[in-house]
Amino acid sequence: MTSHLSRNRSYAILGTGAVGGFYGARLQRAGAEVHFLLHSDYEIASRSGLRIDSADGDFTLPKINAYREVRQMPPCDVAVVALKTTRNELLPRLLPPVLKDSGVVLMLQNGLGIEAEAAAIVGDDRVMGGLCFLCSNKAGPAHIRHLDYSSISLGEYAPHEQARGVTERMREIAADFARAGISIRLVEDLVLARWQKLVWNVPFNGLSVMLDAATNEIMADASIRDLARDLMRETVAGAKCRGRIIPEEFLEKMLNNTAKMKPYKTSMKLDYDAKHPLELEAIYGNLLRTADDANTPKIAALYQQLLFLDRKNRKS
Amino acid sequence: MTSHLSRNRSYAILGTGAVGGFYGARLQRAGAEVHFLLHSDYEIASRSGLRIDSADGDFTLPKINAYREVRQMPPCDVAVVALKTTRNELLPRLLPPVLKDSGVVLMLQNGLGIEAEAAAIVGDDRVMGGLCFLCSNKAGPAHIRHLDYSSISLGEYAPHEQARGVTERMREIAADFARAGISIRLVEDLVLARWQKLVWNVPFNGLSVMLDAATNEIMADASIRDLARDLMRETVAGAKCRGRIIPEEFLEKMLNNTAKMKPYKTSMKLDYDAKHPLELEAIYGNLLRTADDANTPKIAALYQQLLFLDRKNRKS
Repeated sequence: MTSHLSRNRSYAILGTGAVGGFYGARLQRAGAEVHFLLHSDYEIASRSGLRIDSADGDFTLPKINAYREVRQMPPCDVAVVALKTTRNELLPRLLPPVLKDSGVVLMLQNGLGIEAEAAAIVGDDRVMGGLCFLCSNKAGPAHIRHLDYSSISLGEYAPHEQARGVTERMREIAADFARAGISIRLVEDLVLARWQKLVWNVPFNGLSVMLDAATNEIMADASIRDLARDLMRETVAGAKCRGRIIPEEFLEKMLNNTAKMKPYKTSMKLDYDAKHPLELEAIYGNLLRTADDANTPKIAALYQQLLFLDRKNRKS
Repeated sequence: MTSHLSRNRSYAILGTGAVGGFYGARLQRAGAEVHFLLHSDYEIASRSGLRIDSADGDFTLPKINAYREVRQMPPCDVAVVALKTTRNELLPRLLPPVLKDSGVVLMLQNGLGIEAEAAAIVGDDRVMGGLCFLCSNKAGPAHIRHLDYSSISLGEYAPHEQARGVTERMREIAADFARAGISIRLVEDLVLARWQKLVWNVPFNGLSVMLDAATNEIMADASIRDLARDLMRETVAGAKCRGRIIPEEFLEKMLNNTAKMKPYKTSMKLDYDAKHPLELEAIYGNLLRTADDANTPKIAALYQQLLFLDRKNRKS
């Protein structure tokens, strides 16, 4: 069904930021061939490489394969898309040059409906998705600070929200990440994994922006903890109307884990503070459109408020 | 049924702020006997009176009957409660000394369930409610700035949410206000009038705080205008489950009027900016508790967020 990747798999990192830069650097340090696409950090990274401050140990890669343009990059086995979803209008230009015929796109992005955007460009059988459980941010140009966690849930894309099962190329990629010290969970049903991730992202990304609050403040306040749980339950209702069952214990476990986390600014809050566009369509808009038979009024209200704040934030 | 007020009605103004100060000053200027309870502005007001900058014409009252304590005030025909609802725990101490046996309490406050608090103290047949359509704020100590509108909807309280009809003492009070140039609409059903006012207050008070936005910004943004309409519709559903029908045209007219208003900071936003407690229970909490059979998830989510912001705001 799916193509096989080369024995020594090469990686193109599209978006060398807190996510792509971290995973790409770890892969290179473990011996993989990695090519990094950079934008504003290109000059410094091509001169002095990447610096990673990490909970797992700091390291520097003094030399990386740095590119400013995809047409200068070699075709790779795996094209890792680690851009914000708000930049996905670039994919038609970015993906074709960096992908071998047998290559696969790995979408390391949040939200729903992400893989379909890549599949429309490279074909349905050449796309995977990964959900990152990673706390990291940019500390400066070509300098990434990794705070906590690093695992990825990896699954194959299939049209019509089918579960595709575990494939050989998933194991191959997982082996590369394992050598780099990154734990990969292979999921048979990528759509379920995306909904499970949304159970956390829907409340905590949005509320952190609306309330100017880190995870610990949200968990410490009774009314907002209740609202977070309500938003989680609506997300579960959305998943259910797409045939994915998430049990109630999953929510409670997620809330308990969040309460135990170090105080954490969500990626959406970091984007907001930097006046970057928020990933509202991938996380909220696509959810509401996909699950329009479910009862999701509190998610809808949060989305309506965030749309306003995002527009206002970027104007100011 | 209801007692008659004296021929020359005296007024006690409990809370000489943007609302009580404005109406009390207008009544005094028109010849009524008015007694003002003041707190932080007592010294200046007893020395140099009240200053009103008004869209209807500026004026000063060099001398007013100013009091710091209710026990120094004479019993009056009408005790006007113009405190924030967040101070209503003071009512058992404030009301009895300032009310004649034949007197009536006039609650000029927002929200639901307000009159019942006064009725528990002075008796069911001695309470009225008024909804103020007034843009005014404090410009400084004993100095009020009236921006726009001034009318009041006035109705009798009755237990069990009964409509009480129009009484003689309502006409008497309306006549006093009319002499002061204040238009009073006499309503047969105070509960309906309170729900109608909530149709505006529920969206615009809360959203102005959540989004740091004035009315014009809310009306100019498609997603927030939609959310405002959704919140209005949920308020209408709440009214309906208490037997009060508010037609759809009422909403559209209110939205259109708001779009035409001068940019306006809501009273809740002014309270928030001043780090005062927000009137969340009167406007949201009582609504949700009273209309718990109605489908009001977006109001509930707004309330949950506002509870958090209010607590955080007062701590900072």
